[in-house]
Amino acid sequence: MPDLSRLITPRSVVIVGASPTPGALGNSVLRNLERHAFAGDIHLVNPKRAEIDGRPCFASIADLPDGVDAAVLAIPGPAVLDAVRALAARRVGAAVIFAAGFAEGGEAGLAAQHEVARIAAEHGMVVEGPNCLGLVNFVDGVPLTFVETPPHPCPGEGIGIVSQSGAMAVVLGTTLMSKALPLTVSISTGNEAASGVEDYVEHLLGDPHTRVIAMIVEQFRAPARFLALAERAREAGKRIVLLHPGTSRAARESAATHTGAMAGDYALMGAKVGAAGVILVPGLEELGDVVDLAYRCPAMPAAGVAVLTESGAFKALTLDLAETLALPLPPPGAATREALAAAVPAFIPVSNPMDLTAQALVDPDLYRRTLAPLLADDAYGAVVLGIIQTDRTTATLKLPPILDAIAALKPAKPVLFAGLDEGADVPADYVAALREAGVPYFPAPYRAFRALAALRTETPVRANAAPIPVTLAHRGTLPEYLAKQALAPAGIPFPRGVFAATADAAVEAAASLGGAVAMKAQASALSHKSDAGGVALNLRGEAAVRAAWHAMHDAVAAHAPGIVLDGVLIEAMGERSVELIVGARSDPEWGAVILVGFGGVQAEILKDVRLIVPGLSRAAIVGEIMKLKSAPLLAGWRGSLPLDVGAVADLVLALEGVLAGTPAIREIDLNPVVVYPEGCVALDALILAD
Amino acid sequence: MPDLSRLITPRSVVIVGASPTPGALGNSVLRNLERHAFAGDIHLVNPKRAEIDGRPCFASIADLPDGVDAAVLAIPGPAVLDAVRALAARRVGAAVIFAAGFAEGGEAGLAAQHEVARIAAEHGMVVEGPNCLGLVNFVDGVPLTFVETPPHPCPGEGIGIVSQSGAMAVVLGTTLMSKALPLTVSISTGNEAASGVEDYVEHLLGDPHTRVIAMIVEQFRAPARFLALAERAREAGKRIVLLHPGTSRAARESAATHTGAMAGDYALMGAKVGAAGVILVPGLEELGDVVDLAYRCPAMPAAGVAVLTESGAFKALTLDLAETLALPLPPPGAATREALAAAVPAFIPVSNPMDLTAQALVDPDLYRRTLAPLLADDAYGAVVLGIIQTDRTTATLKLPPILDAIAALKPAKPVLFAGLDEGADVPADYVAALREAGVPYFPAPYRAFRALAALRTETPVRANAAPIPVTLAHRGTLPEYLAKQALAPAGIPFPRGVFAATADAAVEAAASLGGAVAMKAQASALSHKSDAGGVALNLRGEAAVRAAWHAMHDAVAAHAPGIVLDGVLIEAMGERSVELIVGARSDPEWGAVILVGFGGVQAEILKDVRLIVPGLSRAAIVGEIMKLKSAPLLAGWRGSLPLDVGAVADLVLALEGVLAGTPAIREIDLNPVVVYPEGCVALDALILAD
Repeated sequence: MPDLSRLITPRSVVIVGASPTPGALGNSVLRNLERHAFAGDIHLVNPKRAEIDGRPCFASIADLPDGVDAAVLAIPGPAVLDAVRALAARRVGAAVIFAAGFAEGGEAGLAAQHEVARIAAEHGMVVEGPNCLGLVNFVDGVPLTFVETPPHPCPGEGIGIVSQSGAMAVVLGTTLMSKALPLTVSISTGNEAASGVEDYVEHLLGDPHTRVIAMIVEQFRAPARFLALAERAREAGKRIVLLHPGTSRAARESAATHTGAMAGDYALMGAKVGAAGVILVPGLEELGDVVDLAYRCPAMPAAGVAVLTESGAFKALTLDLAETLALPLPPPGAATREALAAAVPAFIPVSNPMDLTAQALVDPDLYRRTLAPLLADDAYGAVVLGIIQTDRTTATLKLPPILDAIAALKPAKPVLFAGLDEGADVPADYVAALREAGVPYFPAPYRAFRALAALRTETPVRANAAPIPVTLAHRGTLPEYLAKQALAPAGIPFPRGVFAATADAAVEAAASLGGAVAMKAQASALSHKSDAGGVALNLRGEAAVRAAWHAMHDAVAAHAPGIVLDGVLIEAMGERSVELIVGARSDPEWGAVILVGFGGVQAEILKDVRLIVPGLSRAAIVGEIMKLKSAPLLAGWRGSLPLDVGAVADLVLALEGVLAGTPAIREIDLNPVVVYPEGCVALDALILAD
Repeated sequence: MPDLSRLITPRSVVIVGASPTPGALGNSVLRNLERHAFAGDIHLVNPKRAEIDGRPCFASIADLPDGVDAAVLAIPGPAVLDAVRALAARRVGAAVIFAAGFAEGGEAGLAAQHEVARIAAEHGMVVEGPNCLGLVNFVDGVPLTFVETPPHPCPGEGIGIVSQSGAMAVVLGTTLMSKALPLTVSISTGNEAASGVEDYVEHLLGDPHTRVIAMIVEQFRAPARFLALAERAREAGKRIVLLHPGTSRAARESAATHTGAMAGDYALMGAKVGAAGVILVPGLEELGDVVDLAYRCPAMPAAGVAVLTESGAFKALTLDLAETLALPLPPPGAATREALAAAVPAFIPVSNPMDLTAQALVDPDLYRRTLAPLLADDAYGAVVLGIIQTDRTTATLKLPPILDAIAALKPAKPVLFAGLDEGADVPADYVAALREAGVPYFPAPYRAFRALAALRTETPVRANAAPIPVTLAHRGTLPEYLAKQALAPAGIPFPRGVFAATADAAVEAAASLGGAVAMKAQASALSHKSDAGGVALNLRGEAAVRAAWHAMHDAVAAHAPGIVLDGVLIEAMGERSVELIVGARSDPEWGAVILVGFGGVQAEILKDVRLIVPGLSRAAIVGEIMKLKSAPLLAGWRGSLPLDVGAVADLVLALEGVLAGTPAIREIDLNPVVVYPEGCVALDALILAD
């Protein structure tokens, strides 16, 4: 990977296609550089002008001095390829390509984009775009974009924007600046011919100014690398907040035509980035809100939330919202209860949320006296102030004592200001003062709670299961008996069983197992043995086994004439109980994932499944399984015994080990897995291997 | 019901507890009356002052002239009861009671509140409160509140606020005013000692100024009356938008302690008000947004939504959001497609949402040329403009041509402006101009779509099923055989069956039915016959029937010694198929409702049930049933035949008729109802009657 510094912190810049015409791309870029008082050299290339605004123009790229850091190509698409070649020849370090019509514009465009990538790789040149809006480095005053961008000082730490969509980078930048948040950079990657979002995130991880990274991505081109970077970000205490369209199939198809990228598996992406500590948000508004909270409140204790408000009806609304968001609002403990009771008049009951009524209008110190015990109580990881602002007069009565309380108490945990009445005319100075005091300001109350819920997500310590190599009889689809042979040594529990190649062997096997048996026809090419008449259950005695053997062979022969059975698996029948499906998958892009869900209708219609990313502890896996909507069935439904979810977690851990130890395996399906009060048993198994 | 005009449009007002002290309630009320230049007489009562600000004071209420219209009681709770008595004696028409400590304050408070109500009823006096913030009539300039309230002119039609919570009325008023929406009145009803939200809604239905009613209610005290009013509102073309906390149990308990009201059945309330045309919203922000859209866009065709935007990534986000909100975004038809293609440059593909890119910056008429064919296409009931505003410069380039397009096209359907970049510095004049042109302005895009989704809800024509009186053998709990006897004539399908009082009769019945039979023990006191061993299935032949008869009697006797069986119901066994539960209920407050859901786990754990309010057509009932999450099971799951949901709808219609024709019935439970490719059969039945 070439170093991105020559693009992001260049000492010299050339505008290819510089223009004296206001509104022209090559003019807007120059205006931006002047507006930001870019400190390095500015070169202009324009074959038709000797100078622009007193700055000399080169007639061609070939005339440039050797080794300019960054070039901005303010020229039409058809001229880009030649320009990139010429820039490479002059050892220019980086090129920003605005022009569209590359990968998203058909065959010829795609070929041109590949050629850009090839030249970049050959010469170690960084390329941003094509089909992008460039970048702005706010820290060093480097705007390589035609979008009119005012300077926005970033004296200390700030937020880096990395977006594939240029328009969305601008949109997000506007919103974050309106929240008085400092930005370090805003980068749009466009078609990512040579550098993708992963490259820019890696750069920002090394940037001491960038503490939060806000991303808008339609398709990760290097998922595994992004996950590794996300883990590094977490270790470095940097937050990544991600907006990724694609919950709907229509959006995934739209992204494909719009960016030339393939539609990915949204649920898998979400599970993987979430496990790596990335906060995935569903919309633009939430992206801005979560970034605001993450930036201003880097410490986010995973405890409950306390709420001070001024209306009983709002208290009820907050309780509804907290339930919806699964945000715990624990009642105050004895000491806190006592301190709160001492702080308020007798007619105000102590509770959480606590309704201070309009009492602070006559007793402004009330905010401090109630906030203090809540901040001191470890049961609370954050405090939300739900305040009725009304108008300038009311705001002027309420905001100064709130600001005083915060100044006096110096909260070590997040305090969020949630205005109940969006649109109230609150003097801007108060909002600015709250933000300077580290208190994010939310114009509507549920936005504060939603952002808290997004950031409270606990990221457990992950430790990968030990790899368990297993031996595969062959590649491709392994039928049940071979899959079970492979997986049993790894600790996956199966019914007692014997593989029989003849009817006599089947009879002997059934006798040795004792009791009722199941018989299942086995062949690699027989993927749906039930449909082919290849399964018989509850058989007892030689006659039944022999009859089933012959019936099964006849049925399979009639159903799938070409298939020769390897034999029949004979297994002891077990008790009925709740059935799960468990599937393990090694995605070529995102890596390993284990699906656990209820079978049949629950999985297929109700989508009652969880995706478990390897690395969780046994207890955390149990926790994930118990998040299934139908989990009450596992917990002792209608007086039955609780089922052994821990055994299912062990099975998940074993599958993680198998995937890690046997890279040839693409998929393992265990369906159903019967869960008992003690233990679980996978009745069927299938392996797909490369 | 006394006429509310003396409260809402009084010609004379008395402030009891008038005060010269700034900040005192009795002073703030006077300031408000002066601020609004109240046109009627203002009387003051204060025993300690001869005059206040040059206005004479009466020493007591007894000194007042006869028949003042409205009194505002700016006095402490303990003084209220005497004041109300004195006001009644002076034939004052209405009293506003701010003081708290009544029903929400324990036994004594409740008794005082009842006394207030009694006096009001006896003298035909209107009482607002206690525990309220009063009201403001913006049309006539009547502020009977101590909350500092500036005039907010309402020259034509406007929005009426009716809220139990005074604080929430103020909060909502602030938000609606900030959206430049005209208000007719803002009324807080508090504890509703004598007048409740229903009374004020009825008044506003007769008010020619009020077109939209925004409500915040924690508990309806007269549900049936509210539903009738909501139907009247719909007929009059007035919209009611309601925020009602209580989705969580915690909120319902909080509301109970806070207002002294009982926790209600939230789901039933939601189904009932929705069926009556009320738009139920989950939060304050959505309440403001939906009211904004409902007021500015009274015509809301129930067709698809067209979206014009300026970013491909936002197009993908919109597709996700539309799927989540079930908002149809149909692609343009041939004629519209052609017109759009002619309106845009070749590099912009025609689609919905349509991404205009940044092209309008160089071709501002693009907005008009693309909006025109969308407005002309009946497939679209509304158009959302998702615009990137960025800053004053950009907004000044984009907003004027959008405003020109709207002025030129005079849309007959809603056009919504959704700014993509919340916080962008858009000149306020443009936002005001959009609103004046009937285009609501949403600061974040998903808010526009959410409001559209809320208001698009189609309200089908409702026609009640014909009442079907049925004969009940007795009151209380009717066991299965008596419930089936009552319901069969109403057209509810049951298995063929015979009630047998002796073992011989049972044998004869089984023989006459033929095939396998089910036997079920019958007695009013035996509510769970399965648990008591009172059910036997799949019996064939005399011996089996006789054995079951005796086993059943023994089991029930052992399980519930006191119970004497009436006999045993013998029924023909049917085929297995998908099972639903159907329950009909006459709620004493909200009226009749029919629950349809999947049985067992789906109903109890996954809450996969629908509440159907009587009055829907057969097709609409089928539509409701097919909204069940597991509905794919009914539609031909895995190649099986589609099941006869129409027969279930007929059963629902029959139950509606039975409830309407037999008022003594509280509940009917049919569980399970087996649904076949043709027809359905209720296997069990229970009736609870007064």
